[in-house]
Amino acid sequence: MSAENRAPGRPRSREADNAILGAALELLTERGVEATSIEQVARRAGVTRATVYRRFPDKTRLLLATIEAAYGDPPRTPEIRDVEHLLVGWASVLANPRQRRLLRRLYGAIEDYPGLARAYRDLFGRERDQTRRNVLEQARDRGQLPEDADLDVVLDLLTGAVWQHLATRPDTCTPSDVEQFLRAVLHQVGYRPGAQQHPAGQVGYL
Amino acid sequence: MSAENRAPGRPRSREADNAILGAALELLTERGVEATSIEQVARRAGVTRATVYRRFPDKTRLLLATIEAAYGDPPRTPEIRDVEHLLVGWASVLANPRQRRLLRRLYGAIEDYPGLARAYRDLFGRERDQTRRNVLEQARDRGQLPEDADLDVVLDLLTGAVWQHLATRPDTCTPSDVEQFLRAVLHQVGYRPGAQQHPAGQVGYL
Repeated sequence: MSAENRAPGRPRSREADNAILGAALELLTERGVEATSIEQVARRAGVTRATVYRRFPDKTRLLLATIEAAYGDPPRTPEIRDVEHLLVGWASVLANPRQRRLLRRLYGAIEDYPGLARAYRDLFGRERDQTRRNVLEQARDRGQLPEDADLDVVLDLLTGAVWQHLATRPDTCTPSDVEQFLRAVLHQVGYRPGAQQHPAGQVGYL
Repeated sequence: MSAENRAPGRPRSREADNAILGAALELLTERGVEATSIEQVARRAGVTRATVYRRFPDKTRLLLATIEAAYGDPPRTPEIRDVEHLLVGWASVLANPRQRRLLRRLYGAIEDYPGLARAYRDLFGRERDQTRRNVLEQARDRGQLPEDADLDVVLDLLTGAVWQHLATRPDTCTPSDVEQFLRAVLHQVGYRPGAQQHPAGQVGYL
């Protein structure tokens, strides 16, 4: 392991970090935001409450770190190459039963924990939306989306379709089921992957 | 009031019905499905638990009756004339802060109360989806939606857009804000209200 890749802190401290974030993710996924108290997380992680509070001064910061860890580290710089890549990534998340539960938990928390939703948007949401928007913009420039497509609306429609899938499809769906769903959705909003800007500048839809 | 419109039961019984359903709707909207126990509903309605149980043998049936009452009586035969009518109806619901909270509560309950979601779908969802699908089909027949539009996908996209609006827009939005959002969404999925089948059978998009 190179010096750059070595995680900071003493081994025992990293162990506690992992135990805390692991316990919080389990509680959050299985029982929701309400049940994921500092007290319950400490108990499940086998550490004292003080050990949790030293790292995370409040529940919101603990939950944000938990979500961040759940989505990989670092999750802030997702390198989405194009719409196809985005689609495959979403299919993989939506075909994972625990990720599905976690996402429904996060939606369910909007009502009672608006502060968490705001903090989440500030920390991850804006940048992630910008990345997705860039990918859509490139697709439109290539002629894969209609010239007059409103990309903010397309983004809302795609995110909404994910909520709809989480609400109405079985958690046993496969990545290929999800991919089929997302392709149909993208098609309906005007996405034509086979369409590419011709060298002469003309746009062709296949 | 005609004989047909008169509610069944004695006045005192109807009073108790109203008190129970009103208390249940308040609890459901303000605190969610988990908190809406028969015990809490009875307490808030000022009746005994036995009075609640006599009408609703379990929590699921109480919640379904509550949702049914909240959406008007009878909610099973919504007469949606066309897409414009659907749009105005949704805008009115989505501009109502309490309806927004209730809908988010129902989404949030999917995870822990799958039985409620199933029962809801059986009682209202299927028929309501069919009504909406018919409206979309008529719009397609009139040339207001692309000939090759997949109506199930359009329906998923519209419902998903509603979840997305509930998750990301402020509860202070006006009916006209919501209408603007929904129109942009409908436009992106290919809806062109000005397009009508010409007498000669041709289809024109405005």
